[in-house]
Amino acid sequence: MDNDLKPGERLDDLVIDNLKIIQHEKEFCFSLDAVLLAHFAFVRQGASVVDLGAGTGVIGLLLTTRGAGQIVGVEISPAMAQMAARSVCLNGLAERMRIIEGDFRQINKVMPSGTFELVVSNPPYRLIGGGYLNPNDKVARARHEITATIDDVIAAAKYLVKYRGRFAMVHLPERMAEILKKMSDAGLEPKRLRLVYPYLSQKPKILLVEGIRGAKPGLEVLPPLIIYNPDGSYCDEIMEYYEGERKSENGNR
Amino acid sequence: MDNDLKPGERLDDLVIDNLKIIQHEKEFCFSLDAVLLAHFAFVRQGASVVDLGAGTGVIGLLLTTRGAGQIVGVEISPAMAQMAARSVCLNGLAERMRIIEGDFRQINKVMPSGTFELVVSNPPYRLIGGGYLNPNDKVARARHEITATIDDVIAAAKYLVKYRGRFAMVHLPERMAEILKKMSDAGLEPKRLRLVYPYLSQKPKILLVEGIRGAKPGLEVLPPLIIYNPDGSYCDEIMEYYEGERKSENGNR
Repeated sequence: MDNDLKPGERLDDLVIDNLKIIQHEKEFCFSLDAVLLAHFAFVRQGASVVDLGAGTGVIGLLLTTRGAGQIVGVEISPAMAQMAARSVCLNGLAERMRIIEGDFRQINKVMPSGTFELVVSNPPYRLIGGGYLNPNDKVARARHEITATIDDVIAAAKYLVKYRGRFAMVHLPERMAEILKKMSDAGLEPKRLRLVYPYLSQKPKILLVEGIRGAKPGLEVLPPLIIYNPDGSYCDEIMEYYEGERKSENGNR
Repeated sequence: MDNDLKPGERLDDLVIDNLKIIQHEKEFCFSLDAVLLAHFAFVRQGASVVDLGAGTGVIGLLLTTRGAGQIVGVEISPAMAQMAARSVCLNGLAERMRIIEGDFRQINKVMPSGTFELVVSNPPYRLIGGGYLNPNDKVARARHEITATIDDVIAAAKYLVKYRGRFAMVHLPERMAEILKKMSDAGLEPKRLRLVYPYLSQKPKILLVEGIRGAKPGLEVLPPLIIYNPDGSYCDEIMEYYEGERKSENGNR
C-alpha cells in the first residue's frame, strides 16, 4: 500500500472496518470533529450523501460503515481532492464513493439540486481575522473561512438536499446562535443538536447540529457527550465507535 | 408568621438567608427552574432588576441574596401578585422589592423604557395545544403560553432593558433555536447559555440563556449542569447554592 504514498504522506488507520486514510504531515489532518460528525449524522440505510469540503475524505469513508449508499465528497484543493480519491481507491470503495474537485460555492454549476438525502460538512471554523493564520496555506484554508463561510455551506446544503432530507454539520458552540438562525432561515430547520464537552467541568468545544429541510421548528437536544473520563481516557461512547472493528476482528478469528 | 397565611397557603423555606415564601397548594409553586435562573443570571452589585411573570416572587427574592439592588416583579394574576407581595413583606424586603400587578404585554403603559440593568423571566413554557392543560386555570397560566408567548417576553425585555443591559431567561431546550433567533432579531444578542441535564445520560430538560442588548454575536456556552449525582442526590453545584445560608448560620452562632 505504501506504493500509493507520495513524499510527506503517511497512511493512517481509521480503526474501524480496516479503513485506511492517506494524510500529509504538513497539511490539515482529520480530527475528532470529523469522527464525531460521522457518528452523529442520522444515516438511512443506502442514503445518498454529499460531504461539503471533504478534505482527506475521512467523513465519507466513515459513513460507509454507517450504512450510507453513494457518497460524493466535494473538495476545493486539487492536492487534497487527489489524496482523498487515492484513499477511496485504497479502501476498494471506488464504486460507492467519489471525490469531486471543485468549489461548493458554485455547486449549482456541476450538480443538480435536491438529489441528496444527507449533506454533511465539517467546514472551516474560524472567521478570518480570528486566530492565528497558518503559514501553510492549505492548513489555513481548512481552519479559516477563506474558501467558505457558514452562509456558503448552508446555501450549498440547501441546494443539494432533498425535501425532508438532512443536513448535519460540526462547528463551534460560540457560533451556535448564528448557525441555528441561518439554518432555520434557509429552511433547514434545526431538529437535533449535541454539545461535546472535553471534560465534565469544561465548556463545550464542539457543536453537532442536524437540520431537516421543510421541517417544523422543535429541537431535540441530545445528552451531553463528555469526551474524556476524569483520568484522561476516552469515554465509553467514543470507545464504542470502534467496537464494530473489534467485533469484526473477533469474528474473523 | 402563620397569621399572614390564607386558607390553602403554606410557608416554605427558601433555604438561603432565612428567606421564606408563601405558596398555595393548588396553584403553581416555584420549581428548580427559578432557582437555576436566579443563580445563572449575571448580577452586578446594586443592579436594578425586573422579573417578567414573577409568580410567587421567588426569583426576585433569591436575587436579593446575589447583590441585586431594586427589584420589581410583574405578575398578571391578582391573587399571585398579592401573595408574592406578602412574601416580600414577610421577609422585610419591602424597601428593595415590589410586586406590580399587571400584564407585561402592555408594560409600556406603566413603566418607562430602557431603565433596567437586568430583566429575568421564567415564562410559561408550553405552546397552547402542547401537553396537558391543568384544570386549575392558574396552574395552566403558569405552564402554558396562555398569558404570554416567547415573543411577548422578548418584546417586554427589549423595552425595559438598558443599552448593554442583560436579559436572562429559563426555558425549554426544544425551543432553543427559536429563542436564540428571536433574541438576536430583537437586539438582545445571546451571549451566555447553559444546558441543564437531569442525569449525565439524559437529554437536557432546562435551557438557561442570557442576552445583552446591543452586543455583537458570539455565544459562550457554559459547562453542563448535571442536576443529580448517579445516586440521585443533588450535585455539588446545586448544594453550593445554599452554602451562603449554612455559612451565615455558622457565623451567627
